[in-house]
Amino acid sequence: MTDFTMIEAAAGRLAGHARRTPLLSSPLLDEVAGRRVLVKAECLQRTGSFKFRGAWNAISALEPAGVIAFSSGNHAQGVALSARLKGIAAVIIMPSDAPAIKINNTRALGAEVVLYDRENEDRDEIGARLSAERGLTLIKPFDMAEVIAGQGTCGLEIAEQAAEAGVTEGRVFVPCGGGGLTSGIALALEAKAPGLRVHPCEPEGFDDVARSLAAGELQRNAALSGSICDAIVTPQAGEMTWPVIQRLCGAGQVVSDEAALNALALAHDHLKIVIEPGGAVALAAALACEGDGPVIAVASGGNLDRAMMVRALDA
Amino acid sequence: MTDFTMIEAAAGRLAGHARRTPLLSSPLLDEVAGRRVLVKAECLQRTGSFKFRGAWNAISALEPAGVIAFSSGNHAQGVALSARLKGIAAVIIMPSDAPAIKINNTRALGAEVVLYDRENEDRDEIGARLSAERGLTLIKPFDMAEVIAGQGTCGLEIAEQAAEAGVTEGRVFVPCGGGGLTSGIALALEAKAPGLRVHPCEPEGFDDVARSLAAGELQRNAALSGSICDAIVTPQAGEMTWPVIQRLCGAGQVVSDEAALNALALAHDHLKIVIEPGGAVALAAALACEGDGPVIAVASGGNLDRAMMVRALDA
Repeated sequence: MTDFTMIEAAAGRLAGHARRTPLLSSPLLDEVAGRRVLVKAECLQRTGSFKFRGAWNAISALEPAGVIAFSSGNHAQGVALSARLKGIAAVIIMPSDAPAIKINNTRALGAEVVLYDRENEDRDEIGARLSAERGLTLIKPFDMAEVIAGQGTCGLEIAEQAAEAGVTEGRVFVPCGGGGLTSGIALALEAKAPGLRVHPCEPEGFDDVARSLAAGELQRNAALSGSICDAIVTPQAGEMTWPVIQRLCGAGQVVSDEAALNALALAHDHLKIVIEPGGAVALAAALACEGDGPVIAVASGGNLDRAMMVRALDA
Repeated sequence: MTDFTMIEAAAGRLAGHARRTPLLSSPLLDEVAGRRVLVKAECLQRTGSFKFRGAWNAISALEPAGVIAFSSGNHAQGVALSARLKGIAAVIIMPSDAPAIKINNTRALGAEVVLYDRENEDRDEIGARLSAERGLTLIKPFDMAEVIAGQGTCGLEIAEQAAEAGVTEGRVFVPCGGGGLTSGIALALEAKAPGLRVHPCEPEGFDDVARSLAAGELQRNAALSGSICDAIVTPQAGEMTWPVIQRLCGAGQVVSDEAALNALALAHDHLKIVIEPGGAVALAAALACEGDGPVIAVASGGNLDRAMMVRALDA
């Protein structure tokens, strides 16, 4: 299980390799939101998402001869670049409906890409088989202690940057798929900023974590595809992430595709950053939520096709 | 005249108020460029451009009762926010063909906006009259020692961040209108990173500085409007900026509108930042230039209408 000591060790491994992404804000965005909103711009992380943190930490800690990963794309790029920088082989298993930019970028980063059908094939089975056949170490997208610890370094930065901005009490909205980023940030804030409480954010129809928190036990999504928020569509939270989320997180926030696209367009206008729909659900929730006080929204990734950005800006 | 001591003093005034913007890069962008390209993301500065630096420094140094400024929009926003944070009045004179987002944002930041016709009216005359009538201090967009010193703080950061990235020799491409940012960065690098040489970058048809450098004396643009790079369309460099540019800068780079739009789209894809056309000319030049070695491109601003981003992404 990931604990705070592992997050601190991860921060040491990431120093000089991952970016310390900025915590952005805009008076014009605050006016739209009707509250102070601080945005942790993880879309500016290497490979365009927070996933580089967990991948780099896991590969640095485990020192494998070669790695294999499955991912809708952001974890894929994080693993591919980390492997290339370490000089080891990377095989990435990706759903065939992932955005072209994610498939192309993963290949361009030197990885071998294996595509599978999200509806009819079991990525875990494919991953296990290839790992065994080729002697590769599986780097899981979220349910792996060193991956969660790596994502937790984002929470360490939030704690410091929020304090610098004078924010020590408030809500932290985090896009949530399998829960690696959500649980990692929650663990970091528990230790470093106990006045900041994490709320997982999900797209409509894929709100398993919000329902799990409400029900008090792990729930599963009915569908496995069909959202524009591809980065955070997963069947359910992980065996390692769910207990942390249940213990530390506040109520889940659920966001429509339209609200995610609107948040993406407002981030373009006021923060000058590019967020993908799945990375925009936390900002969307921050713009719509009730209650007082500042909100910190994590913009977890920015890997989207140009057509999706055009759709958001034309809406 | 601005000197390095004034830039250091400006850095002290800006600490805790301006953002230290990141120096971004991407292996995929390097592949497109065929060289290492580092991008100083000043579009992530407060108000979406570097102009906040000079405005904040000038207002902090001069302590005026109220300010007036003229600008195509980015300087306007920098002055408006600085004045609001200082609790003083701001009147902004803007060309009537400035992008709507710049006019609206300047008003939203609390400033009074006065529009003028770029072809038929003299903004200097209007500024002088209003200054006298209402007792306001004119904050010039570039030809003012404290403004140049403020923009020079961007050069201090480039010197430090480039050294951290292992780059101490190479070209620094800077979008150039009146030359405030160009001369400020050049002065900072002269003192802190003498192996880095600034090259001003301009749009086709508005290449007065490139022609001035080639001719060895100050040249003027024939047209005063008609470029999508509105942020850097000025009649000529300033009396204070030109001597610095002549003494310190390498040859000017001239960029087509199409190349600027392509650079803007590639920054969207690979760096996840939003740049306006005038802010993208340095990156465009970095993608097209000859010769060896790394290039640092300053992305000076990101205030563009949604329609312009759609145009760039649809191209």
